[in-house]
Amino acid sequence: MDQLLRVQNFTVSRDGFGAGEGQSQERPFGHADPMDLMAWAVATASFPNRTGPGGSRGLDDYFTRDFAHGIGAEIMGRNKFGPQRGPWQDHEWQGWWGAEPPFHTPVFVMTHHPRPSFTLADTTFHFVDGDPATVLGLAREAAQGRDVRLGGGATTVRQFLDADLVDTLHVAVAPVELGSGTRLWSSPDELLDRYHRNVVPSPSGVVHHLFWRR
Amino acid sequence: MDQLLRVQNFTVSRDGFGAGEGQSQERPFGHADPMDLMAWAVATASFPNRTGPGGSRGLDDYFTRDFAHGIGAEIMGRNKFGPQRGPWQDHEWQGWWGAEPPFHTPVFVMTHHPRPSFTLADTTFHFVDGDPATVLGLAREAAQGRDVRLGGGATTVRQFLDADLVDTLHVAVAPVELGSGTRLWSSPDELLDRYHRNVVPSPSGVVHHLFWRR
Repeated sequence: MDQLLRVQNFTVSRDGFGAGEGQSQERPFGHADPMDLMAWAVATASFPNRTGPGGSRGLDDYFTRDFAHGIGAEIMGRNKFGPQRGPWQDHEWQGWWGAEPPFHTPVFVMTHHPRPSFTLADTTFHFVDGDPATVLGLAREAAQGRDVRLGGGATTVRQFLDADLVDTLHVAVAPVELGSGTRLWSSPDELLDRYHRNVVPSPSGVVHHLFWRR
Repeated sequence: MDQLLRVQNFTVSRDGFGAGEGQSQERPFGHADPMDLMAWAVATASFPNRTGPGGSRGLDDYFTRDFAHGIGAEIMGRNKFGPQRGPWQDHEWQGWWGAEPPFHTPVFVMTHHPRPSFTLADTTFHFVDGDPATVLGLAREAAQGRDVRLGGGATTVRQFLDADLVDTLHVAVAPVELGSGTRLWSSPDELLDRYHRNVVPSPSGVVHHLFWRR
């Protein structure tokens, strides 16, 4: 089996932004309301951060259910880990993901400012300064034959797309306009020269775009 | 987590038949052409019986990819195992599923004519005479906390629906009319009093119906 690099459940606004402007520790999505983007996923039975019972088991649930399936490592940009820019002031803060992060695999955080690895529950965060191909090599090795998830944000997905390293992308387009922020694309049609695509509207209001290599 | 009874990737004709008339060893789907029903699944990268590389990774692939995910046992009707009716003439023939069946779990074959269990690769077939609730109890125990797949055919799915034992159903409606055969429903709307539903047309031509309990 191929060992794929997969973007999963990545949500953008109708105008192509994965997050708004003005990210801070209190506002990981900047001026965007996270629920405007993530409500479709939060409502499903298989949402990775779900703590209680219930939730829908329709179309959207197939996407959240697939989040960890066959995945052995995640790659994320530094600002999916935390809001800091530049050198770390300290290593005390351990990211937005709580004491039990939803990844359950090694996570490779891309940053020009490495810091020591650490483990929270069954997730180990590694901080690596390297180009996309190098970081993907590390993540592939850690995944031990399973696929690698490219977790975002938009800037990081964009870097891997530009390096032509992404095998499949699932992007949910949410029914909201952000106007500014970190941009994934001007239009999803940009990828059609390299990828097949299915466009699947969901009753929840998002439109799932599923891309796989030609 | 709940231990669900799930129907997955079960395909029927537009007029509600899971198979045609006149089943035989050579024609498991009777007068129906299996490819008219199953082409959508066979084309995907994750089709359980795929032997070579390739295949699509769009919407339909999410369904075939989910086939084994979280499943610990399967229940099937006798005529998904083989074409025989009445008492077994011998036990030599070991079903339609080849030396490496795609189930990889215990399989409970419902029949009024039990025969000894046997194992092919990592699939063990058990033959049980019991009502749906009894067979589900056995399958749940064998699944060790994982979900149970209700594999079909249409008559068997119907029995479990009538006993109100099915938690989720994914039925793909294929663009073909069979006219006669084993019937799942007169209309998918029959289930709306008990289930939520998403209706999701696929570019492949099938329409996925996703039901989960109200």
